[in-house]
Amino acid sequence: MNTKCIGKRTVRFQTPPRILSTGTIVGDVEGEGPLGSYFDIILKDDMWGEKSYEKCECKMFEQSVRTALEKIGMDTEKLDIVLGGDLLNQLITANFAARQLGRPFLGLYGACSTMAEGLLVGSMLIDGGFANYVSATASSHFSTAERQFRMPLELGGQTPPTSQRTVTGAGTVIICDGQNAADKNNSLSIFENIVVVGGTIGKVIDYGITDANNMGGVMAPAAADTLLTYLEESGETIEDFDYIITGDLGSFGAKMFKELCHDSGVELGDKHIDCGNIMFLPQQNTKCGGSGCGCAATVFGGYLLKRMEAGDFKRVLFMATGALMSPVSSMQGESIPAIAHAVVVERR
Amino acid sequence: MNTKCIGKRTVRFQTPPRILSTGTIVGDVEGEGPLGSYFDIILKDDMWGEKSYEKCECKMFEQSVRTALEKIGMDTEKLDIVLGGDLLNQLITANFAARQLGRPFLGLYGACSTMAEGLLVGSMLIDGGFANYVSATASSHFSTAERQFRMPLELGGQTPPTSQRTVTGAGTVIICDGQNAADKNNSLSIFENIVVVGGTIGKVIDYGITDANNMGGVMAPAAADTLLTYLEESGETIEDFDYIITGDLGSFGAKMFKELCHDSGVELGDKHIDCGNIMFLPQQNTKCGGSGCGCAATVFGGYLLKRMEAGDFKRVLFMATGALMSPVSSMQGESIPAIAHAVVVERR
Repeated sequence: MNTKCIGKRTVRFQTPPRILSTGTIVGDVEGEGPLGSYFDIILKDDMWGEKSYEKCECKMFEQSVRTALEKIGMDTEKLDIVLGGDLLNQLITANFAARQLGRPFLGLYGACSTMAEGLLVGSMLIDGGFANYVSATASSHFSTAERQFRMPLELGGQTPPTSQRTVTGAGTVIICDGQNAADKNNSLSIFENIVVVGGTIGKVIDYGITDANNMGGVMAPAAADTLLTYLEESGETIEDFDYIITGDLGSFGAKMFKELCHDSGVELGDKHIDCGNIMFLPQQNTKCGGSGCGCAATVFGGYLLKRMEAGDFKRVLFMATGALMSPVSSMQGESIPAIAHAVVVERR
Repeated sequence: MNTKCIGKRTVRFQTPPRILSTGTIVGDVEGEGPLGSYFDIILKDDMWGEKSYEKCECKMFEQSVRTALEKIGMDTEKLDIVLGGDLLNQLITANFAARQLGRPFLGLYGACSTMAEGLLVGSMLIDGGFANYVSATASSHFSTAERQFRMPLELGGQTPPTSQRTVTGAGTVIICDGQNAADKNNSLSIFENIVVVGGTIGKVIDYGITDANNMGGVMAPAAADTLLTYLEESGETIEDFDYIITGDLGSFGAKMFKELCHDSGVELGDKHIDCGNIMFLPQQNTKCGGSGCGCAATVFGGYLLKRMEAGDFKRVLFMATGALMSPVSSMQGESIPAIAHAVVVERR
């Protein structure tokens, strides 16, 4: 067993990669939510001057990377690897944005777990010695997701009580080699010293749920599996964290997640934050809250890291969950499996 | 610059990960091609007893991993990470197969470059100290791809001269830590000593081609870019290789690739093999040859590695290319960008 593997699924970095900057862009509805002031750019509409929602999402992905780089005065050329993904068919958002960015690119697909997958893979590539600077990005867009996964927006379809609203948002986190970070000239950062210390790779978990309007219920078991695996393999407890942060379980999924943890003897108490639960106000009528790759990406990058920097909390487990289905698999009667990847982030 | 990075995009492994085994499954048409005898399983039809083409592809993905493991008597439990992807919307093939395999999973999307992306990322994670055993898999299926990307099969549409036939195939390569491999008890392998010594991460390249029936022309510039970058950053020349192997440029794309290399002063001569070009016989009437993730995955895993083991060649650059579009991006007037990831494989 390699010393960096502290369990079959859990890794701990030798030199924890440092988080240098973030860039977050959200839609107008998200901007009116309680976290509005934390995001870098709030769009006035869901097109951003583009000719289609898809092109808008692509611009958001690209600009979230550029915004994160600009904050620390870093040239795009300095990025060794751009990592990322989105929800659209054939990952067009990430792929077309990567074309514009012109840097080495690794496309990832983990549905709404993509931000955590990117942070985990990016940190492993840095700590493994294969990159000095990487970006991890995930994006989603209400209007592109609705027409791809559900119905044309023009139909004005009703949603059931367990449904969530796909967040229009793109979030980027720039990470660098922890060793480089020691060299002050090389490490302009908007955060004093926030690092990724390790993480757990997700496993595909399926509880047999077939309701594509109950993503929280689909994803909660995967979140519980990854958290319990991390705790077991690391020997840590909930007490070692200020918060366990999930991506977009929403209110129904969050409740189920806490119950599943409870059934395994782990009490989350008030230590659980779900990004989907805090993105919107109750009066915004999003049923169970926000969802989509962009939810975890913007709330983590825009809000939670800033609160860590402010000293509000020091150590979190950030775990984004993804529901792994397509309209085709659902129509063919398949249940919906899910995955959750986790990273442990510390302010030092 | 870290010693493992020998250029901005090119890495060289400290302890080259070793290739232990492969598993390949192809459809009946592929089985009738010139490479038929090299594949592990040839299906009698394109359903394999499943109720849909999609479920068949998923079974092929899963069974290609199991076949590779069985050959070396390795428990599925021993796999630290399953890496892989496919062409279907929301990566359902890989995701549902990963559910069956029950191991930590990282979903990748690089269109038809996925096999090379998986080998490269998997090797980096091993050499970085984060895994001992990983599998990299890619799959495609003629009947799932046709109805998703083009037209229902029942229409019996005609294809233009530059078109290629999506290969029905799934290929898996099992890689392990080169250090572990030194311990004979730990390294049952079907290959004596074949290792991945390094590679180059792809960049998204777009020459403005919009014809979704000319994938070879779309992908050739990305292949040339990655090859030229590898040669420049490593200081090596074509003479250092027995073959440069591309994934599925097909006959038109292969010609363009050679011309683009020639224009940059690199002569491939007779040192180029394209997997798409050798998958079918001329009388099988596949126009420009084979394509799809499964093409490079099965030809590399089933045919080329066996020829290396037989001593026919010692050092190759394996580079799979992917066309990064979806029907939506094409309908919105976008051109088709492409990417090529490369790994250098040596028989020692």
